[in-house]
Amino acid sequence: MQHVISVLVENKSGVLSRVSGLFSGRGFNIDSLSVAPTLDPSASMMTIVTQGDDRIIEQITKQLNKLVDIIKVVDITENEYIEREMVLIKVSARQEERAEVFRIADIFRARILDSSSTSYTIEATGDAKKIGAIVDQLRPLGIKEFMRTGRIAIARKSESGEPAEKVKVPRPHRR
Amino acid sequence: MQHVISVLVENKSGVLSRVSGLFSGRGFNIDSLSVAPTLDPSASMMTIVTQGDDRIIEQITKQLNKLVDIIKVVDITENEYIEREMVLIKVSARQEERAEVFRIADIFRARILDSSSTSYTIEATGDAKKIGAIVDQLRPLGIKEFMRTGRIAIARKSESGEPAEKVKVPRPHRR
Repeated sequence: MQHVISVLVENKSGVLSRVSGLFSGRGFNIDSLSVAPTLDPSASMMTIVTQGDDRIIEQITKQLNKLVDIIKVVDITENEYIEREMVLIKVSARQEERAEVFRIADIFRARILDSSSTSYTIEATGDAKKIGAIVDQLRPLGIKEFMRTGRIAIARKSESGEPAEKVKVPRPHRR
Repeated sequence: MQHVISVLVENKSGVLSRVSGLFSGRGFNIDSLSVAPTLDPSASMMTIVTQGDDRIIEQITKQLNKLVDIIKVVDITENEYIEREMVLIKVSARQEERAEVFRIADIFRARILDSSSTSYTIEATGDAKKIGAIVDQLRPLGIKEFMRTGRIAIARKSESGEPAEKVKVPRPHRR
């Protein structure tokens, strides 16, 4: 089973190296990882997507908690959560293919960021399934470049403990 | 000056640890880093955002090229490029604040992904400046959680060598 672990760390040199060394040294696989600043300049947030049964994940979180400069470790997948990833895709789009790329972008609510005489660059966001689906749709046209952020996740339950309402949120008004 | 370096690596255990160890061991600072699978299952792409003058960046790319399991190192910021980051923000949104959150999301073309009785969860994408601006707008309402992917970038110039057209791309039709 895939787990998304968020690790709040002190913003110090060597933390990333220690965390990634812990994974490789123990043979734990990392599917994706991102590390970026938080709103507090002294801390960074790492999001690690990894595979493993409950025993392995427990072992990983215990080992992470033992490292210096680690403030907090949370397995976000333990509760309800929202996960998202962003990809940038440069896809071949000559004259006769342009309409098709537009249709695919529209279906996946993706954005066309840039255009050349032979390609479009598209930004898409979504969970793993949606990203896989847009890649499958664009692949026959010819994907020239592909960059992805790795997944990040956020708990659905709010801090005060009450579950999030499962209401349908209306889409913002488009101008 | 900030540089975005993309590093294509063999998908082997320990590569991330060696790359991050190279940075910390030499005192090079990493602002953000993401590593994720590519379309080729044997390779992963790392995107590293770092600071430094040209001499330091040259040193970094040389050192990276010497590491085993590194396939290709490109300083994307050397040429024209598009950079993007995604953030997930859970912001306080009680009844009287909801309209204001909608207005801010609309201005920044952000998406509201989830709602609870006291909060909205928003997905926003953009360059560093835009992300900074939406955070500044939402901060007075109360940001409860904040996750970001770190930046990824893609060259504007297409592979065949011709520059991308600087045309305005029409927005896809909204239904």
